[in-house]
Amino acid sequence: MSWLAIELYRKGMVKIGQFKLSSGLESPFYIDLRRLYSYPELMENIINMALNTINLDEYDGITGIATSGLVLASFIACRTKKPLSYVRLERKEYGTKSLVEGDVVSKKILIVDDVATTGSSIEYAYLAVKEQGGNPIGVFVVIDREQGARERLGRYGLRFYSLLTARELFDILRNEGYIDEEKYNEIIEYLKGYR
Amino acid sequence: MSWLAIELYRKGMVKIGQFKLSSGLESPFYIDLRRLYSYPELMENIINMALNTINLDEYDGITGIATSGLVLASFIACRTKKPLSYVRLERKEYGTKSLVEGDVVSKKILIVDDVATTGSSIEYAYLAVKEQGGNPIGVFVVIDREQGARERLGRYGLRFYSLLTARELFDILRNEGYIDEEKYNEIIEYLKGYR
Repeated sequence: MSWLAIELYRKGMVKIGQFKLSSGLESPFYIDLRRLYSYPELMENIINMALNTINLDEYDGITGIATSGLVLASFIACRTKKPLSYVRLERKEYGTKSLVEGDVVSKKILIVDDVATTGSSIEYAYLAVKEQGGNPIGVFVVIDREQGARERLGRYGLRFYSLLTARELFDILRNEGYIDEEKYNEIIEYLKGYR
Repeated sequence: MSWLAIELYRKGMVKIGQFKLSSGLESPFYIDLRRLYSYPELMENIINMALNTINLDEYDGITGIATSGLVLASFIACRTKKPLSYVRLERKEYGTKSLVEGDVVSKKILIVDDVATTGSSIEYAYLAVKEQGGNPIGVFVVIDREQGARERLGRYGLRFYSLLTARELFDILRNEGYIDEEKYNEIIEYLKGYR
């Protein structure tokens, strides 16, 4: 996955520095994949890798986490012709009150998001799909920040697929000379805090 | 488009009755296409029709209106390998403050949504894309409720494509015996209020 790590770094979707996450916590790196969708070739490669990694025959439906994960989910659904649904992370004021849009009943579901951090959004989506009668059995993300998602979701017996973990990503960036040893060590120390 | 009108009605995505819209206004019909994505064949037919209707060669990018329009935009981008972006209808608290996610700079953009009503969401998306340096030249929706969108967007010189207008939809449903003359007339009177 070296090419993917390097592409994401070069295109500014992975940044090294000091960042404040939406949770309020500080982080020595920043990952934001929303601009991915503007690069059709990169998208196609990522979707191809996802389809090679996951045995989609085992799934009856794809559920994307809105907003960013929904794009990846849509591409996977478009390519595999599987039913698509999505989860909103907040309740709507009007219309149906359901958090899950689309039909998941009795379906083996693959939950899709762009990045996993602590896994709380994905856990939320998992519970919402279950509540609607769906059966989520797997999760796909492009990058696993390795901050607890795998462990949290493992509790539910979910299969967890990522194209890159944070450690793989920063190993590649160090080996290719994009980040120095000091910064690399800082990141690894930071990640250890989430073990 | 008879088959599409009938499918949407049979699957409960078009309903006849008395409904309250998110704007607070009453409506004698209700259109909600979010479950569309759970029907892969229907989706494929709709995307095929969109690609036959719109000359996609004229566009450099697709911008979906989150959340529901983003799925259609993603499918069109997946099929045509065009750069994808999306517009959120509210500002985010963290990260970039931009309303448009993805790169639209100097691109001829097709804006995609599921349903057009007054056109205010699409106008909002149009202005957001312009502000980011994009050049929106066309709009695609599955259904035009004919409540002002075409006129509103026409002011900006946007090409406006829909697979079904409200009148086409209800003409078909009346002709096929799904709604009676009285209800049909009520709907037509209601729509006249938006001329």
